[in-house]
Amino acid sequence: MKQLLIASTSTIHGSGYLEYLLGDLEIFFKNCKTILFIPYARPGGISHDEYTEKAREAFSKINIQVKGIHEFESAAEAIKQAEGIFTGGGNTFVLLNQLYKNKCIEALQNAINNGTPYLGTSAGSNICGLTINTTNDMPIMYPPSFKALTFVPFNINPHYLDPITNSKHMGETRETRIKEFHAYNTFPVIGLREGSWLEVKGKNILLKGTLDARVFEYGKEPYEVKTGTTLQHLK
Amino acid sequence: MKQLLIASTSTIHGSGYLEYLLGDLEIFFKNCKTILFIPYARPGGISHDEYTEKAREAFSKINIQVKGIHEFESAAEAIKQAEGIFTGGGNTFVLLNQLYKNKCIEALQNAINNGTPYLGTSAGSNICGLTINTTNDMPIMYPPSFKALTFVPFNINPHYLDPITNSKHMGETRETRIKEFHAYNTFPVIGLREGSWLEVKGKNILLKGTLDARVFEYGKEPYEVKTGTTLQHLK
Repeated sequence: MKQLLIASTSTIHGSGYLEYLLGDLEIFFKNCKTILFIPYARPGGISHDEYTEKAREAFSKINIQVKGIHEFESAAEAIKQAEGIFTGGGNTFVLLNQLYKNKCIEALQNAINNGTPYLGTSAGSNICGLTINTTNDMPIMYPPSFKALTFVPFNINPHYLDPITNSKHMGETRETRIKEFHAYNTFPVIGLREGSWLEVKGKNILLKGTLDARVFEYGKEPYEVKTGTTLQHLK
Repeated sequence: MKQLLIASTSTIHGSGYLEYLLGDLEIFFKNCKTILFIPYARPGGISHDEYTEKAREAFSKINIQVKGIHEFESAAEAIKQAEGIFTGGGNTFVLLNQLYKNKCIEALQNAINNGTPYLGTSAGSNICGLTINTTNDMPIMYPPSFKALTFVPFNINPHYLDPITNSKHMGETRETRIKEFHAYNTFPVIGLREGSWLEVKGKNILLKGTLDARVFEYGKEPYEVKTGTTLQHLK
């Protein structure tokens, strides 16, 4: 059975890396001694080693070991053998480009569809949707496609941000950007605020965390859904 | 001689469309009775007609007529024949995709390099750089390339935004994003604040408007440059 935690962010304000999720992660990865970390999104351009060390430190608190995917000769084989997988945040374009380059797309789809538990945060969550068309990241690299892993039948917008009241900045709000997306695409987008995540178990998709999420469906006004709402009907 | 106005934004807070620039535009387009408007970036997904009407209304105040590029049978031919050209803001991916699709890239390079005056705002400015790797826009469409028009020897980041003091949002700041760009690319980026523009005359590039701009060079700490600074040495 497919099992995923698709989180808006790794870190909430005033708290350590993954800290707000650790209790849930201990249960989610309960059958894993070691998980495979995919550091390809390289936040701030840090190295794969440095980023893996950060994940290692957080998971050591729940007695789970972490191996970086770059430590293996074959990334696809590492995915196939993994007990659990975590893809960290950073730049979604860099991440997806590297997944294509290292032939990880199909390997991830096979593993996760066969039940390997998967945690994604931020960019690692973006790639769980249909495409990366709704990432907030800067397109600092040109991937061979924007098509993503399609673990959920819609797109994710992590770090969802409400319009800032009284802002004098004339750049587009997040809501405007997602509305523009719907001028060219018809599938739904879930705006996940920091501290929210989706729990996928087989065909069920549940909104978790303390906050509401914002749903954008083609041809409808955007609307809020409460934590605890199921979302598998969206497509 | 190449002549461009590359503006951060069309509109500054509390002012009408292009209002803050109209005095300069009257001089810049003094030899044009009619300019060609490229509405491809479709802000908010509005139609080419609606967007062209908005540009027409603004330019009517300085007695310049506006024709939309979509009103012509051949976009490339319309560019070749134009007395002056204005590309408006919106979504940079949608804009660049349409420019490639309609074979406008080479036509624009030929026209502008031969002296046709060009105004860009926001997305219309982004495409004047080497690539669109430093756009702020959501990648709602997959263009055939991120390569842009290369009218200036660096990249533009329009609507440049300073970090928001005391923000609790954990998404990346603009500065962090541009630093990540430099993990994979070596050419400079000019962060143009709303109300700033670059004036290109032949080989000279001058920062104009009342504000400073922020320059990001590979391997250096970002720094501020005052209005009136020349920037053609950056490459």
